[in-house]
Amino acid sequence: MNNFGIAIHGGAGTIVRKKLTPKLEKEYRAVLRQSIVSGYDILKVGGSSLDAVQSAIVVMEDSELFNAGKGAVFTHDETNEMDCSIMCGKTLECGAGTLLRHVKNPIIFARTVMEKSEHVLLASDGAEQFAKLHNLEIVDPKYFHTKRRWFQLQVVKEKETETETTRAILDHDGDNSKHGTVGAVALDKNGNLAAATSSGGMTNKRYNRIGDTPMIGAGTYADNRTCAVSTTGHGEYFMRLVTAKDVSDLMSYKNMSLKDASNEAIKKLSAIDGSGGLIAIDKNGNITMPMNTPGMYRASFSNGKQEPLVKIFVEE
Amino acid sequence: MNNFGIAIHGGAGTIVRKKLTPKLEKEYRAVLRQSIVSGYDILKVGGSSLDAVQSAIVVMEDSELFNAGKGAVFTHDETNEMDCSIMCGKTLECGAGTLLRHVKNPIIFARTVMEKSEHVLLASDGAEQFAKLHNLEIVDPKYFHTKRRWFQLQVVKEKETETETTRAILDHDGDNSKHGTVGAVALDKNGNLAAATSSGGMTNKRYNRIGDTPMIGAGTYADNRTCAVSTTGHGEYFMRLVTAKDVSDLMSYKNMSLKDASNEAIKKLSAIDGSGGLIAIDKNGNITMPMNTPGMYRASFSNGKQEPLVKIFVEE
Repeated sequence: MNNFGIAIHGGAGTIVRKKLTPKLEKEYRAVLRQSIVSGYDILKVGGSSLDAVQSAIVVMEDSELFNAGKGAVFTHDETNEMDCSIMCGKTLECGAGTLLRHVKNPIIFARTVMEKSEHVLLASDGAEQFAKLHNLEIVDPKYFHTKRRWFQLQVVKEKETETETTRAILDHDGDNSKHGTVGAVALDKNGNLAAATSSGGMTNKRYNRIGDTPMIGAGTYADNRTCAVSTTGHGEYFMRLVTAKDVSDLMSYKNMSLKDASNEAIKKLSAIDGSGGLIAIDKNGNITMPMNTPGMYRASFSNGKQEPLVKIFVEE
Repeated sequence: MNNFGIAIHGGAGTIVRKKLTPKLEKEYRAVLRQSIVSGYDILKVGGSSLDAVQSAIVVMEDSELFNAGKGAVFTHDETNEMDCSIMCGKTLECGAGTLLRHVKNPIIFARTVMEKSEHVLLASDGAEQFAKLHNLEIVDPKYFHTKRRWFQLQVVKEKETETETTRAILDHDGDNSKHGTVGAVALDKNGNLAAATSSGGMTNKRYNRIGDTPMIGAGTYADNRTCAVSTTGHGEYFMRLVTAKDVSDLMSYKNMSLKDASNEAIKKLSAIDGSGGLIAIDKNGNITMPMNTPGMYRASFSNGKQEPLVKIFVEE
């Protein structure tokens, strides 16, 4: 029996027990479980790691709980602008999108770019023109207009001072918001790795800011010779460190284990005062999910296990 | 006397002698010389590597000859959309822009994002709003409307077949176009490295395609512990390999020399059928400029040398 497995995250940040009601915690755990089982079931019957990560992410994109798809946070201009990426570890092919405003499931968009376009990253109106051409589901921006996210934006705006450089707020750092980007990594029975990430970015972001999610190497990386990685947290720091590719390079060039390489990447993140976490799976099916934050919504499910592991707080 | 030096490129591709008239070749060499001297003069008097790479790139952006700034190629929709990035090897801070249509010097925009914004990458209208806020020079899109680039687009469009996935053409691969992205890397007297890249992307590009130029790690990377790198060529392949960061990691994790690491990165590019080149300088002032194409507009100037080296063809 070949090794296979999947890990997912629903964002890292200051997620602590006192901030999460038992009801909300239960809801998070339920969607995380539904997401990982959806991906695992594909792997179990011999499906591809690309299909598994896509399926797991669609579940989180369709939930209001996570900052991706339906639950995407609001920009300063009160729009929702989504980022996404996916990568195939076998071919190193990848697809990504940014500044998406009407695509229901950004991760399906990223997959379509990977498979149907000569390009890697498409943005904004042009990207949505491409999405329509390939018959992806397009929704009215109102679809992304959730009460909770709207409230979060108002809270942030009320706190703004009258400076020209008003700060954007990471989803998980606001008092009423404890989660960010979603991601998934998987190894299938054929030994192929895949990684994918989807995000609504930062509450109150301005100037069409693009985060690390659509950056191949920063938010997402997969290479069959090493590992598949998806990151979550303060994107600008992951961009400076090119964190996902860094984990792969530490394994490839320094012969580090997945765990050591991932811990080293988080150590580097801490060294430049960045916060966040990552999920990673290697070519042998080992999984690690380190973070330097109090929590990260996450789950893992490997072959041989009866049940998925679903976790939120760092100490679990 | 401390080591210092600078290298620049003006794009790699199928640049061969028979395609370049003696007059045009002379013009290219003159602008390359002007660019590198402008950066070198800053380093010589103790200026920063960031100022040097910016100055060298502004010279190329202001020339019609290179695919950046004034000479940017046209998209399918007959607009000019520019990408740029800059990185400081001392702090790992970086700034980048994409889908810029009105900023006269994209590289100054990237520098401003790095220094004045909490973000790394800003795009499109939001980016230009930020540019105006910081009093950068804004020009009418007509400024980028050069006869030569317009003609190149028409030639490409005439060749198009009636498929939905009309191909974008790399600047340097068209019959009448032999050059692409511009870039610069430098080491200053204080031991600080910097890298920067600026590009108009691909002729006839669609769907708001974003290339490797604004991707920290793919098109640009700088780390004082290793090297500074700027790439040029078929961006999608550099994005898959995260080439600029790869050179840095091969030095850092495998203890390779700058030259070996850079050659290894180009070998990987060739292995996935990507084409292009890169320029790199290490913390000791060594410079290398490998490519897998017949040519790359390039120049280097190190302390101790009386004159810059200016080259175009691979065999020079």
